[in-house]
Order: sequence, then C-alpha cells, then structure tokens
Amino acid sequence: MKRAGLEAILADMTISEKVGQLLQLAPMFYKGTLTEGEITGPMAEMGITQEVSERAGSVLGSATAAEMMAIQEEYLKTSRLGIPLIFMADVVHGYKTIFPIPLAIGATWDVALAERMADISAREATAAGLQVTFSPMVDLVRDPRWGRVMESTGEDSYLNSEMAASFVRGYQGDATKLAENHEKIAACVKHFAAYGAAEAGREYNTVDMSMRELYQHYLPAYEAAIQAGSKLVMTAFNVVDGVPATGNEWLMRDVLRKEMRFDGVLISDWGAVKEIVNHGTAGNAAEAAEQSLRASVDIEMMTTCYLENLEALIADGTVAVGLLDEAVMRILELKNDMGLFEDPYRGLKTNPERQKVILSAEHRAAAREIAADSMVLLKNEHAVLPLATEKRVALVGPLAKTQDVLGAWSWLGDTRDAVSVEDGMFAQFDTVDVAGAASTEHITEAEIAEMVRVAQNADVIVLALGEASNRSGEANSIATIRLPEAQYSMIDALHKIGKPVVTVLFNGRPLDLHGLLEKSDALLEAWFPGTEAGNAVADILSGKVNPNGKLPMSFPYTTGQIPVYYNHLSTGRPADAADAQEHYVSHYLDIPNQPLFDFGFGLSYTTFDYRHLTLSSDTISINQPLNISVTVKNTGNIAGKETVMLYIQDLVGKVSRPRKELKRFEKIMLAPNESQTVTFQITEEDLRYYKPNLDFSSDPGDFKITIGTHLEAKFCLV
Amino acid sequence: MKRAGLEAILADMTISEKVGQLLQLAPMFYKGTLTEGEITGPMAEMGITQEVSERAGSVLGSATAAEMMAIQEEYLKTSRLGIPLIFMADVVHGYKTIFPIPLAIGATWDVALAERMADISAREATAAGLQVTFSPMVDLVRDPRWGRVMESTGEDSYLNSEMAASFVRGYQGDATKLAENHEKIAACVKHFAAYGAAEAGREYNTVDMSMRELYQHYLPAYEAAIQAGSKLVMTAFNVVDGVPATGNEWLMRDVLRKEMRFDGVLISDWGAVKEIVNHGTAGNAAEAAEQSLRASVDIEMMTTCYLENLEALIADGTVAVGLLDEAVMRILELKNDMGLFEDPYRGLKTNPERQKVILSAEHRAAAREIAADSMVLLKNEHAVLPLATEKRVALVGPLAKTQDVLGAWSWLGDTRDAVSVEDGMFAQFDTVDVAGAASTEHITEAEIAEMVRVAQNADVIVLALGEASNRSGEANSIATIRLPEAQYSMIDALHKIGKPVVTVLFNGRPLDLHGLLEKSDALLEAWFPGTEAGNAVADILSGKVNPNGKLPMSFPYTTGQIPVYYNHLSTGRPADAADAQEHYVSHYLDIPNQPLFDFGFGLSYTTFDYRHLTLSSDTISINQPLNISVTVKNTGNIAGKETVMLYIQDLVGKVSRPRKELKRFEKIMLAPNESQTVTFQITEEDLRYYKPNLDFSSDPGDFKITIGTHLEAKFCLV
Repeated sequence: MKRAGLEAILADMTISEKVGQLLQLAPMFYKGTLTEGEITGPMAEMGITQEVSERAGSVLGSATAAEMMAIQEEYLKTSRLGIPLIFMADVVHGYKTIFPIPLAIGATWDVALAERMADISAREATAAGLQVTFSPMVDLVRDPRWGRVMESTGEDSYLNSEMAASFVRGYQGDATKLAENHEKIAACVKHFAAYGAAEAGREYNTVDMSMRELYQHYLPAYEAAIQAGSKLVMTAFNVVDGVPATGNEWLMRDVLRKEMRFDGVLISDWGAVKEIVNHGTAGNAAEAAEQSLRASVDIEMMTTCYLENLEALIADGTVAVGLLDEAVMRILELKNDMGLFEDPYRGLKTNPERQKVILSAEHRAAAREIAADSMVLLKNEHAVLPLATEKRVALVGPLAKTQDVLGAWSWLGDTRDAVSVEDGMFAQFDTVDVAGAASTEHITEAEIAEMVRVAQNADVIVLALGEASNRSGEANSIATIRLPEAQYSMIDALHKIGKPVVTVLFNGRPLDLHGLLEKSDALLEAWFPGTEAGNAVADILSGKVNPNGKLPMSFPYTTGQIPVYYNHLSTGRPADAADAQEHYVSHYLDIPNQPLFDFGFGLSYTTFDYRHLTLSSDTISINQPLNISVTVKNTGNIAGKETVMLYIQDLVGKVSRPRKELKRFEKIMLAPNESQTVTFQITEEDLRYYKPNLDFSSDPGDFKITIGTHLEAKFCLV
Repeated sequence: MKRAGLEAILADMTISEKVGQLLQLAPMFYKGTLTEGEITGPMAEMGITQEVSERAGSVLGSATAAEMMAIQEEYLKTSRLGIPLIFMADVVHGYKTIFPIPLAIGATWDVALAERMADISAREATAAGLQVTFSPMVDLVRDPRWGRVMESTGEDSYLNSEMAASFVRGYQGDATKLAENHEKIAACVKHFAAYGAAEAGREYNTVDMSMRELYQHYLPAYEAAIQAGSKLVMTAFNVVDGVPATGNEWLMRDVLRKEMRFDGVLISDWGAVKEIVNHGTAGNAAEAAEQSLRASVDIEMMTTCYLENLEALIADGTVAVGLLDEAVMRILELKNDMGLFEDPYRGLKTNPERQKVILSAEHRAAAREIAADSMVLLKNEHAVLPLATEKRVALVGPLAKTQDVLGAWSWLGDTRDAVSVEDGMFAQFDTVDVAGAASTEHITEAEIAEMVRVAQNADVIVLALGEASNRSGEANSIATIRLPEAQYSMIDALHKIGKPVVTVLFNGRPLDLHGLLEKSDALLEAWFPGTEAGNAVADILSGKVNPNGKLPMSFPYTTGQIPVYYNHLSTGRPADAADAQEHYVSHYLDIPNQPLFDFGFGLSYTTFDYRHLTLSSDTISINQPLNISVTVKNTGNIAGKETVMLYIQDLVGKVSRPRKELKRFEKIMLAPNESQTVTFQITEEDLRYYKPNLDFSSDPGDFKITIGTHLEAKFCLV
C-alpha cells in the first residue's frame, strides 16, 4: 500500500480505533486461539472486554502458524477498516532450533555466525507466522549478577555493536524488502536504554550513570542496530537520568528519534507503561499514558493505560491528537512494510511447505557449528584435551544427562529436541560411563557416590556441571556468582580420585570459578549451547573442533570485584604504574585487581604467533586513515581459528580514557604452519569519544596500539 | 594584618616566591626538624633543593609543638618577606585523645557530641602547634568495600551534612575569630568531590554518576561544611565526570567557588596534582600544573608540578599571572586569618601550659562517653545484656587484650594510651578470665583451645573480635566484607560450648555478619572506639550506659548485595508492591532485598513507644511550614537515649524519588516511663530536589511521613 493509502485509513479511523492500534495483547485475549473460552479471568483482571481485543493492534507471544492464522481470521471479520494484526514474539536465540545464548554468540567473535543464527531464526519464526521478533537485546553489561547477562553479547560496546548489526541483518535482510521477503522477520532492538546497568545486578533496579558514560558505552549498540535498519525499538524497564525510559521524552524524542534518527515503532516492554506509576513519576495510569505518548511510545504492551485514558486526554486537550496520529501512522507503516495489508497471513497461506525448515537437519548443523565455536577453553593443563575417543570416559555431574541445555529465553525451544552431553559423547567416544544428578541445586550423597564409582574405572573424568537454565535470564539475578553450593562437595569428591578432570561448565553468566578451576585439569566454558549442546561439547572434547571462543565479558575473581571490565580507566594511582607506591595504590587487600579471566581470553588446542605489527604511517589524520597489519601464524599441529583483536589507547584525553578499547577484530582460520596477514583500517572517526559537554571528537596526540599479547606500537593523530 | 598589607606583600613578591607559597612539603624537608640531615634522599627523589623548602608555603604532618616551632624559626630566618609557614595535619578523630572513628561518630546521631569531639581535637592539636586539620572527611559512601568508609559518617547526605557542619563548628568555633581563638583550628573539608563512590569499592578507583546524583546526594555534605565556614577544601583523587577533580575547572570554579561560594584555600590531596598525568588528562607535569591552577587549586601537596612549571607557563603566556596571584592571596589570607603574621607560633610561645590538656582526664572522659554512645547493639536475644557485674565472664578473642582499638587515621594516637577491652572489663566486672589471640588474621589451634578452656568455666562468653585497625582506612579496600577467615573456626568452637555468647565487634566498615550473628546471643557493634575503648565497652556490657547508637550505614546481607542503601528508588517492579507478580519483580534468587541491618537500626536495653503523630496542618506551602510532632515514651525499666528520625517520601516527582529520605532527627534522653514530645519543622525547602536539568525545586502534591517503625501520615504541598 502506498503512503496515501495509509493516510486515508488514518483519516477514516475513530479516536477509539486509533487507540486500539496502540494496544498489544497476548493471544489468550483473542477469538480463534486454543485458549478461547478461558479468557474471562485475565480479561476481567486487565479490565478489558471482547470489544477491546477486537480493536487491539498487535499480538505478542503467539507460538504457531495455526494459532496466528485463526486469530487473524477472526479479527479481520470484525475489523471495520481491515487493518490486520501484527504478530510479535521473543525469538531470542532461535525459534525451535535453539542456538547458544547470546552471551555465547558474543564469545564466537564471529559476526557471520551471528547473522546466520538470526537468519535461521527468521526462517523458522516466519514459517510459523511471526512477523516481529523482540531481538536483538544489546544491553551492555558489566555485572554478572544480573540474570539477563545471558541475553547480551557482553561488556564491550564495539563487540556488542558489531553483533547487534549482524543480528539485525540476519533477521531482516534488506529492511526495505520485508513485504516480499517472507522468510525475514522484523527486528526489535532492546532495551532502550542502559537496562544492563541495573544497580547491584538486581533485576529491574535503578540505573544511574553520567551522560558521557551513557553515550560512550551504552548507546552505541542500540544505534548500530538502528543503523542496520531495526524496524522496532523496545523501551527499558529502568530509569534513565531518573526518569523511567518508557516515559522519558528526552531519551526517546531527543536521543532516539532525533539524534539516532529512528522513525520506526517504539514499543514498551511488558507492562512498562503502567510501571511508570510504580517508579513514582506518574501519579496514575492517565499520567503514565500521557508521558509515554509524549515520549513517542507507539505500542503499549500488556497494560491498558493508553486504552483507558487517551480518549479522555485528547478530549480534554491534555494531549494533542497529532501525537496519537503519529504513533498510529508508525504502526500502520510497520504493518504495511511487512506487506500485511496485501497478505495478512504473510507467506503462510501461499507456502505451508515452509514449516518443514523448522528444526531441519541443516538448521541443527548450523546450531552445532555455532555452539562449538562459542565455547571457550579456559584451562587445559598438560594438554589433557582433546581426548582420544578410545579413552574410557566417566561422564558425571548434574549436566551429564539433562536436556536442560537450551538456556533461558528459548521460549519455543523444546528440551526434548536437545542433545544431552551424554548423547553427544556416546556418538563420538567408544566408552562413556555416565552418572548424573537430578538437580543442580541439590545433589545427594548417593548421586555423588555413584559418580565416584563410575569415575574410578575411567581414564578421564568429564564433569558436566553449572547452573540450571532458569538460574539466569529475566528476573534471575543472583547476589553471589558461584555455582550452587551443592556442587562443591561433588567436585571435591571427584577431584580426590586423582584422575584427570575435564570440566564442562554450563551457565548463563560469568562465575567466580574458585573451588572448581583449581580442581579441574581442563575447563571448558560451554554456556548454554542450545539444541545441539551435546554434539558440540563432544566436538570440542574429541578435537573434531578446535576450541576458538573468546570471553565477551570478564570473569570476576570474586563477587566482590564487581564491576570489573577490561576497558577501565587508569585512575590516578594505578597499581602497575612505574612510580607506584607499595601500599597507596588502587587495589584490594584480599584479591588482585585482575579478573579471574580477562575479556578476550580463550585457549586453543594449537598456538598462534603474532609478528610484524606494521603501520602504514606513524600518523593519522582526518583525510588519511591508518592501516595496521599483523601476521598471525599457527605454530601448532592442529588447524584452528583465531580472533585477531586490535585495541587502542588514547594516551591523553580531555577526559580520562580507558586503558584499552577494542576497535577492530577478525576471526581467521589457519592450518598448521599457515600464516596470514590481517590488516585493519582505522580512521580518525574511530578515535572520537564523548567529552563532558557530549562533544564527540578526537584529540590530536599519541595513541597506543595493542595486538595479541605483546605487540605494541604508537601513532599520532595530527 | 589588613587586606592592604597582604596586597602589599603580594605586590612585593617575585614569581618564584609566589610559586613557593603554593608548595606544601612534609617536615623532613625543613631545617630544624628531628629528621634534619636525613633529607638528601627524599629531596633528590622529589627533585627539590634546600632553597626550595625555604620558599615553600606550608607544612603537612608535623607532629609536635617543638618541631613546628623549630621549623618556623629556621624558616623565618631566610624568609625575605617574613611570610610564616602554616602547619597542617590529619587530625581526623582526635589528636592524642582518640575518639571513635567518624563512622562511629555518625552512629551517635548526636551533633553535639560530634562538635565536642572536634572541639577537644582542636584544643589538643593547637596546643601542639597545628593550625589546620585535614578534617572533616564527609564523602558519602554506599560501598563498605572501600577502606575509607571508616572516615565517613555514612550513606546519608542529611546525616553527613549535619555531622559535617558540627565538626567544622567544633574545630573552628567562630571562623572569623581564629586569629584570637588559639584553641581553635582551621578545618579542611574533603575530598571534593564524590571520592566515596569509588567503583567496586576499590580505593582511588573511577567514579561515575549522573549530575543529578552528584548534586542530590554527594555534594550536600561538602556544602554544609563550607556553609559552616570551613576555611579549606581538599580535592579528591578521583575523576568527576571523567576529569580528575584536582584539574577539574568546572568542578572547582563553577561548582565549588561559584555555586557554593567557597573563597578559601583549595588544597590538593597528597600528590594529586601530579597524578593528573596518571589519569591521562594531562600529558606531563606542566599540563597538570596548568589544569590545577586553572581549577583554582591553591596548594599542591607533596609534588612539584607548580614549582617546576608555573614560572615558565607564566613566562610564555600560557597561564595568566592573575591566576597565581589569586591563589597566593588566598593562602596569605588564610595565614592572616589564623593570625600568623602577628604570631607565627600562634599561641605556643605565649601558653606552653596548654599542652597539658593533651590526653587530659576530661578529654578521656569525653572520649569514653562518645565511644559508648557510638556503639550499636545489633542483637540481644533473651536480654542477655546487660551483664550483672558479678557474673563470671570469659573474655576471649583477638580483640580481648589488644590495644589496637584506635582505628585507622589516628596518626598521633598512641595505642599504649588505649584501654583494652580486658582492662575495661577488669575495672567493672568481678571475675574476668581472658584468652586472647595475637592476630586477627591467624588464630592458632592453641589459642582457640585456651579460649574454649576459659569459656567452659564462665557464666557468659564475651567474644571480642573483628578487624585489625589497618584492615580499613586509606588504601585498605577489601573485596569480600567478611571477618578474616581465621575467626570463623574460633566462633564455631566457642558457640559449641553452649554458654551465652556476647560478641563485641571491632571494625571499620559494615560487614556481612553471617557466621557470627547466628552464633551470638548478643552482638555489639563497637567500631573502633578510640583511646577509651575498653571502658566504653564495659560501660555498655555492664549497663552503666544503655546502648543508643544507630547504624549510619546499611549492613549488606552479603557482599553481592552492594550497593544497598536505605534511600533507594522504587523501581518499576518493587517486590513489595500490592500488585507485584510472584517472579518478575526486582529481587535476587539467593538473598532478600533487605540488608542484614538497616540504616538507622540499633537496639536499646529499654523500649520506646511512639504515639500521637500530629501535623500542624495537612498542607504545607512556601510561606507556611509544617510542624510534625510525635510523643516518645520510655516503656522499659532503664533510662535510655533514643534518636527520633523523621523520613519523608515524595510520592510523585519529575524524577523517581527515594522510598524514604531522612529529613530531621533528634536524640533525646528518657527516664523509665518518661514521655517527651518531639517537634520537627519542615519547610518547602526541605522538599526540593534536583531534576534532570539540575533545577532544584519542589513539586506540589502528596508526601508521606514515616516516624518510628509504624507511624505514618501524609501531607500535601500546595
């Protein structure tokens, strides 16, 4: 439909119909759903009627093509103007084929894999009728206590930005062709803004930071997603500069819409419009509605502040009808961009065959590859890994047999489709004896005794442990980032046997690994690997895949070190300064300053040598970019992937600048003895940063480059 | 001397002499000191000569009248213009008579006691020749990992402000009469600004917060000290909005000097001018000097950036000489305000008798009273306290016999003057058997065995434990706020005996008390009580003093709950909301949201009943203040002090407002059955707060009052 057509529809709409478009409800409120007839309770609770659901503009969380088609058919029967519903859901790391959690995707450092994950997710989700996914989540996070750390790609704004753009490209493809491209889904970047900085890592908690910090570190990944074309943006639950994001006119109008030039649909998070009242910046639902609309929030998810108040607010002149029209037009445009006016069942009626791609062998193969590439080898003493497949393996621990390996926010993923570690190991190793545990939180003496019994007969103990998937994710903050206490006596008992211990760790967040690390000969961070978990673990343990993941987030030495992140400032008294005093430096008495494992850390079964760091010039200017080359050689006996990372440090700035900042990275594959020269180009723009007045500019002067563990060089911005 | 006289001196000074005034050195660099002759090494290290020390304008850290007199005499011999040195030092919680640490002073909630402490400190310090104390430290702190938490009065800006003003009044008296008032000392409020917000509680670490947060919570206590007349301000080590405080022109010129109208001497913290280079906002010492002078830092402490660079910077026109003149004039004015031009030995030569007040019986009595009033009774099951003095007491633990009870920053305090718990208990209890331990960090099996042996014969075990005084204070951050590990097996062994355990805790910070609390029948937070420690502890245990301290800072449930503070925001999903969901609320999976002990908490041996909360009106306006009265009755059998606290909540604001905010408090003494009505007056000004644009104003609307544990009322600002 052309713009004029949308305008004609808008002109024809009553205020009540317009307000209806702004409401998003769950499927249970609609006729045609499986739950039809059970809706009286929830409807009464939310104070809505059948008539209201017949006016609502969008649906969240419907799961299947059949349901969505039924809802749409029923809906259009009573729709005066024939404006179709649009269907949205949380397809976060896969629809049915579940990929590793986003934190693990971050650990791949492979933007092509991120894009492929999103592409496959889009294929499956659209085959099931979905039109919008509430993904990617790109909230920068430095606090592993927060449960949703599993949904983020980590602590660095550049890595997050690259991942954000890749996810959006993978979901949407060409954002201008979503109407034709029925295998693509609209993306919704979230949560705008800075939700990942919840104080004390406690879910939904207060966020406070300087404007510079917000602009420098927290906003770039959202902006990257928007520049990549993300059709929607979701508001955050938290306050930004004291004002709830959802009612924050400055944040949404000035920053999001003006500075970032976002003109798509802005949707509230679940209930977030009404929660403005809880925040205490609106006295009631009407004020919450007014503030949200002024902030240009187009869709209210699952509360009815707009529905119940906008008509009156417009009638009494509090809110101009123009604000409502704007919001409605953005929603109509989204529906039109998705081709819904032409085909409200977008791709479904014309191609039911497409549903066969869901959980296809091809998709599972991709999930397996991505999962293996996301795993991070944290320790490998005496090259205990890889394991020869003829070794007798004792596979023990609470994650040995379970299919709970998908991770949180794998909504439609079915654990019954998941490959357990056990099944993955059986497929590749000759002799695997297994002793599991029914729970990660409570491990019985009998279970430990059986693990010990099995382990005593083995050549090597593979200890699969960690968190249950519901120990991370939304509202799953934990104050102490340790394994569940029950697992430590199990670890001790197995360690005492004296056999090599290879630990495979499943978890949704960086953990303090003391008590596990020193009792493991090898430690593989497997995150939550998704549907192909067991196969991917076996691929790494057997050496079929050489581990190549790198941490996208620092692993704190202990909970009390939080926040710890690689791109910290120098401070006035750095402990490692040449003239540092013995005592009066920035340090703790009880632990080192360094995290247990650094951002970017990850071992391989082979070794890489970095040489010949070469700069095209010792200066850079606005008109003259700088090329930085380094030669990387695989000096071991096994082919392997290596992520080459370029860091810079601005040595003197108008504000104190990070000790190092990631500016470029590239993942390469090298056969034994193979060398490759990687060249990065840096421009003056890469050297800009935010000053106290939010001026974004660079400073002439010296910069330091770091590549690999030891190569350094300097250049000068002139 | 009149202002014209100072101007004449300034006019007569060479640039070199002016620059000299800006330098502050330690006594060892001066002739006449005890260390004379040993200065070649340090001088060479700092790159200064004898000639330089003859130009320097002030001295820090000299300890005795004899030394200061000798230095001044020698100095004036070579001083062309006869400008005397001024002597400054860290008299933080007492000179020789050591009072409880400032955090404990905060726990008294008694501004009169704070003022008395400062008054006595001033008497002793001036008797020893000092003219300026680097106190009060009023940095708001929410993170007990930070070592200098012991130097602060806690987490609340209002309590800190009241304490800050009291300290300044106590030190200075009438600030316009310091020249005559030889028993008063100039105060130096520190550290401007926000030093207490060091990230992750790690000393000297980065500080980042919103401007609103800075103005709302962190700045008020400094401003209160300045309004109370503090003659000096000290810069902080940290960055403020990315720029090191010491070189932060906006912070010092706009905020400190313009907004707060501070016209006194601004002094850097130790080495902080040069540390601007480490922060990376100055490329070298010359830039550090330029930035600091532009920021109006008058005195450079212990580095020589000014000395080495200002002449050249002025000569080449980089810095206007007017900036130097300003700084010098402020220093001359300070010296003149102290009467040093008339009497460079200020009070010393005329009254050597005064030194007898040092550690006088009167001062010790005050220290004892303040120490007892600072202790906080955290637990008292079955009224195990107070103890009858005829009970047989086993006094055990690493703090039982030690005189290390002064706390950090008690520089001139001598532990040999301190009363140990043992000696305090001997003086009041009939039978005390003692078994100590040589260290807080390493407790031997033999020591524990002896404690157990002693305890088995007793009626009650008094367990004195905690931190050594050098586990808090500057550069003594700890990542895990627990007792030293060695103490837990001791606690377990003593608990197992089955006798009542009364724990007396010595420490410089809030700690996670799990593992101690549940094994103690009573728990007394003694902080570091100072010189009269043991007597004050015995006063409380015997019931001679009814405990009346209240926590000035929340005690976290565990390290992973940091930061936790009472005046937090509501969030959008408070766990205690009426419509809160079961899972999707702001919470942790593993611990509660509430701290282990709340800000303001503290038990008494008696009970108090709060009744008749009465408001003079249900509205308040700019012209009509509100009187709020409550009647408090001592309903127990023992006289006791109670701190009546008034909290308000602004129910709807332009930004999210704290759940409660302390607005008034008053400490009262009540005999058994005595009642007293306390009346607080609140004005519209008390309801103002900072909005995103830093507009400081109030909002018409409803406010909630809370007094005591259960009394609530509402009023409306019209």
